[in-house]
Amino acid sequence: MLEDKNQSRTSLEQLGEFGLINHITKHFKASNKSTVKAVGDDAAVLEKTDKQTIITTDLLVEGVHFDLSYVPLKHLGYKSVVVNLSDVYAMNAQAEQITVSIAVSNRFPLEAIEELYAGIQLACETYHIDLIGGDTTSSTKGMLISITAIGKADKEEIIYRNGAKETDLIVVTGDLGAAYLGLQVLEREKQVFKVNPNNQPDLDNYTYLIERQLKPEARKDISSLLKDMDVQPTAMIDISDGLSSEIMHICSQSNVGCKIYEDKIPLDPQVISTCEEFDIDSTMVALSGGEDYELLFTVSIADFEKIKGNPNLSIVGHINNKAAGLNLVTRAGQELELKAQGWNALENK
Amino acid sequence: MLEDKNQSRTSLEQLGEFGLINHITKHFKASNKSTVKAVGDDAAVLEKTDKQTIITTDLLVEGVHFDLSYVPLKHLGYKSVVVNLSDVYAMNAQAEQITVSIAVSNRFPLEAIEELYAGIQLACETYHIDLIGGDTTSSTKGMLISITAIGKADKEEIIYRNGAKETDLIVVTGDLGAAYLGLQVLEREKQVFKVNPNNQPDLDNYTYLIERQLKPEARKDISSLLKDMDVQPTAMIDISDGLSSEIMHICSQSNVGCKIYEDKIPLDPQVISTCEEFDIDSTMVALSGGEDYELLFTVSIADFEKIKGNPNLSIVGHINNKAAGLNLVTRAGQELELKAQGWNALENK
Repeated sequence: MLEDKNQSRTSLEQLGEFGLINHITKHFKASNKSTVKAVGDDAAVLEKTDKQTIITTDLLVEGVHFDLSYVPLKHLGYKSVVVNLSDVYAMNAQAEQITVSIAVSNRFPLEAIEELYAGIQLACETYHIDLIGGDTTSSTKGMLISITAIGKADKEEIIYRNGAKETDLIVVTGDLGAAYLGLQVLEREKQVFKVNPNNQPDLDNYTYLIERQLKPEARKDISSLLKDMDVQPTAMIDISDGLSSEIMHICSQSNVGCKIYEDKIPLDPQVISTCEEFDIDSTMVALSGGEDYELLFTVSIADFEKIKGNPNLSIVGHINNKAAGLNLVTRAGQELELKAQGWNALENK
Repeated sequence: MLEDKNQSRTSLEQLGEFGLINHITKHFKASNKSTVKAVGDDAAVLEKTDKQTIITTDLLVEGVHFDLSYVPLKHLGYKSVVVNLSDVYAMNAQAEQITVSIAVSNRFPLEAIEELYAGIQLACETYHIDLIGGDTTSSTKGMLISITAIGKADKEEIIYRNGAKETDLIVVTGDLGAAYLGLQVLEREKQVFKVNPNNQPDLDNYTYLIERQLKPEARKDISSLLKDMDVQPTAMIDISDGLSSEIMHICSQSNVGCKIYEDKIPLDPQVISTCEEFDIDSTMVALSGGEDYELLFTVSIADFEKIKGNPNLSIVGHINNKAAGLNLVTRAGQELELKAQGWNALENK
């Protein structure tokens, strides 16, 4: 999954800003009917719609959010788009457009930018998204990517964080913790590589973890799955910072408490075996690991029969009144207060 | 116009990301009816509309686009918003929302970020814009600001770059070149300050130039001015890179040529006197200086009587057929080919 280092190098100065924009965007074809005008004017234009418009934005900084020593640029481009789309899907909306702005130092040749945009294009094709604008500029250090995603949804279908009610069930999609562990594996291999650059890493036991870290997918499918099941969640958020932090956002904005059951948290077998190998607590990884880009939502208890047994969904707890607080019930039946520690909790371990 | 250096310092780490977002955004109140949900969920939500939606984005990097040694943070915040709004107004649309993402190194205390957002807030109030989202993160070096502006307009009113027709008149708003000269004055003072930090600069002769550089305004007023005059431009663009570069965009996308008359280019008296002092050609400054954030548009020659004599507007030339090329007619009557050199033309002088 590493980059080919034997690439040719064309300096960005040779092209200039407008040349670079033309070069990059000529492979992108807008295909959504709502895109009236994409790249090429002072601004992009979207068709009028009888739906509401959803807007979200994220900023990714080299050395803070990604490490190019083990993140291939194509994967980085793909992931940068996916993390933004995830926020649109967390509103129960359909994503349709993105703008992409990048700042890059002169250490990046044109070929590197092409790789990045190849990943962006792949994500656009996979999720049926139009690239409609952006900005390219030089930076004094490193690479920075700023993406804004635009979507739409009927007013009645949009799900906010503030609608969770007492007795609602708490549901997560997919499984948790794998992306964080994937990062730990890649960081370990980076250290090994520093000591012995000829060492060929054997990553067979970690393929799922590494894929979840390097090429996560956003849950575009959940909106239609819920519609098919005739379930309208009461609150929803995407899991970018770990289950603990996200349920705290829902509880805080909905003015409620919650109870999460440790034995209900969905974990992939590779997460369990790798946690044993790394001697980390798998529950802690799921609660505080982050970057899973699964969805967390609450539904009325009346929807229990519709939800249970669905292989995409796990009921992990229920909403309580606010006074009861936010708690984790351990496998031993002990109740612990949930804390939003994010990655710090794991790094300071 | 310089910052107070005796400010107290609160480190950003003390607040954390969510604390910082809450602290910054609590002073912002959304007031546009189209803003359904601003900051605080996975994404912002805008009301449905029978108009088209306009989206534009810009990325500003410290050391590339601004120099904090003479740009006060409040002015920087204001200008960062204005340059984005300018792109919306250049579509003949109304701007209503922005998202603001910033990456800052730990050399910036909370008080610096507050100054930046005070400027952003002032621009929001001045232009009646809602801050609806964004991202804050740490950077490994310097400050970076990414802003996306969202506006709307009736389909029939939107003006693209590609509608200019042969014989159309070429019109610019306001005057040109002052922002570039303001930067030259500030750069000169920076050099003086390095040699003698106790020198009190006398900037009385350059107040207009410095204001145009540090606190530019976007031409929100032109859309209604044109409507009142019953003039619908055939093409429009904002002047961020200098008149020469912008008219080339219009000609290229409209598949036409043009003739610009040197003696018609609107210049402020301070531009003329400062060009003499700096021994720079004022026409070159207007053509290649940039950052004026005025509007450049073309209108049918039938609108001549409506345009002429308006103190906000200057007719600087006319559109030609493509084969005639893009030319500047000098005061001496000589025809020179226009070149889009941007700031490089001036820096390599």
